[in-house]
Amino acid sequence: MSASLTLFYSPTSPYVRKVMVLLHETGQLDAVRLHGVTLTPLNPSAEVNEHNPAGKIPALQLADGSVLHDSRVILDYLDQLHGGEPLIPREGAARWRRLTLASLADAVLDAAILVRYETFLRPEDKRWDDWVLGQCNKIDRALAHFEKSADELGQRFDVAAIGAACALGYLDFRITDLNWRRDYPKLAAWYSSVGQRSSLQATAPAP
Amino acid sequence: MSASLTLFYSPTSPYVRKVMVLLHETGQLDAVRLHGVTLTPLNPSAEVNEHNPAGKIPALQLADGSVLHDSRVILDYLDQLHGGEPLIPREGAARWRRLTLASLADAVLDAAILVRYETFLRPEDKRWDDWVLGQCNKIDRALAHFEKSADELGQRFDVAAIGAACALGYLDFRITDLNWRRDYPKLAAWYSSVGQRSSLQATAPAP
Repeated sequence: MSASLTLFYSPTSPYVRKVMVLLHETGQLDAVRLHGVTLTPLNPSAEVNEHNPAGKIPALQLADGSVLHDSRVILDYLDQLHGGEPLIPREGAARWRRLTLASLADAVLDAAILVRYETFLRPEDKRWDDWVLGQCNKIDRALAHFEKSADELGQRFDVAAIGAACALGYLDFRITDLNWRRDYPKLAAWYSSVGQRSSLQATAPAP
Repeated sequence: MSASLTLFYSPTSPYVRKVMVLLHETGQLDAVRLHGVTLTPLNPSAEVNEHNPAGKIPALQLADGSVLHDSRVILDYLDQLHGGEPLIPREGAARWRRLTLASLADAVLDAAILVRYETFLRPEDKRWDDWVLGQCNKIDRALAHFEKSADELGQRFDVAAIGAACALGYLDFRITDLNWRRDYPKLAAWYSSVGQRSSLQATAPAP
């Protein structure tokens, strides 16, 4: 089929990666045309701003020209387009438990990106150690929770697992001194196992 | 009925307010016990951390002890508990359009809270004007989009309208020099109109 959807895309955005992994897992890659963009909060992309006033990616343009964002809304949309088992449970306790785990993974990403901005984008004399520490503590508490929930996380490769895998992949990509595998061996084993999936292999950011 | 749900709560959190407004609108206030907490990214609440490792509110504890977060997941859960018209459309184009508008409102909140942290929490000598400007530009673009979409926003008081109203309420509460009503008169008229609803009156943060 010809691509009727356009995804505003960067190969290093972990939020975009969640969408790409879902497209791989649900066999919908051919439905989406990737449109590469580059941006930061200080150097936004005029083209992205035009389609998503929040200036963020991923944003997904539909055939009628309308645009969906952010990553959670896009995941919800794309998960209803395929005929397979939903990657976001449609109802019952599983729905909110898996969405809560996915939300925790997003919180790791949000904190990691604030750390990245603080230590990379911000002028050196304006960096604030306590802020970085607060965000790193948040990441650490979340990883400790994923460690306790490793068996549950591993029950299926769905929205929760996609979120956690993309969050861990981003930590390895951008906060390379974190050494989380030492403290969280069960999580490390899970991540090593799911890391063999072609959806994660094909979407890993290049170091 | 006796309250079987516990909401970790602050009267000044706009993310908590979204949940409170939905509880008002759907007649579910009695189902939830409010548990007040105080926190910032630098001074987290140990009690909140125990229930939500991301250290954020709202978090909603269910009768079985499990905890849901963040605000979007809680809204999704609570909207399936009542028997009235859903405030989050369950399917079709309306679902993703209204969730995209709600996501844009969350982006306004996220940016406004980063501005608040930068100008209130961070030591003065470590503040970075370009960062504040980048976040304010994001807010401005989003408000311009809501201005263009004011008629659409006003079609019903649902997840999109709740998000937009709580975002505008937070701007009035914390970024008092923004003067957004001058530039966005249709949005101001809409906000003035929905501001009469008891759900918004009862949940407005005290100045």
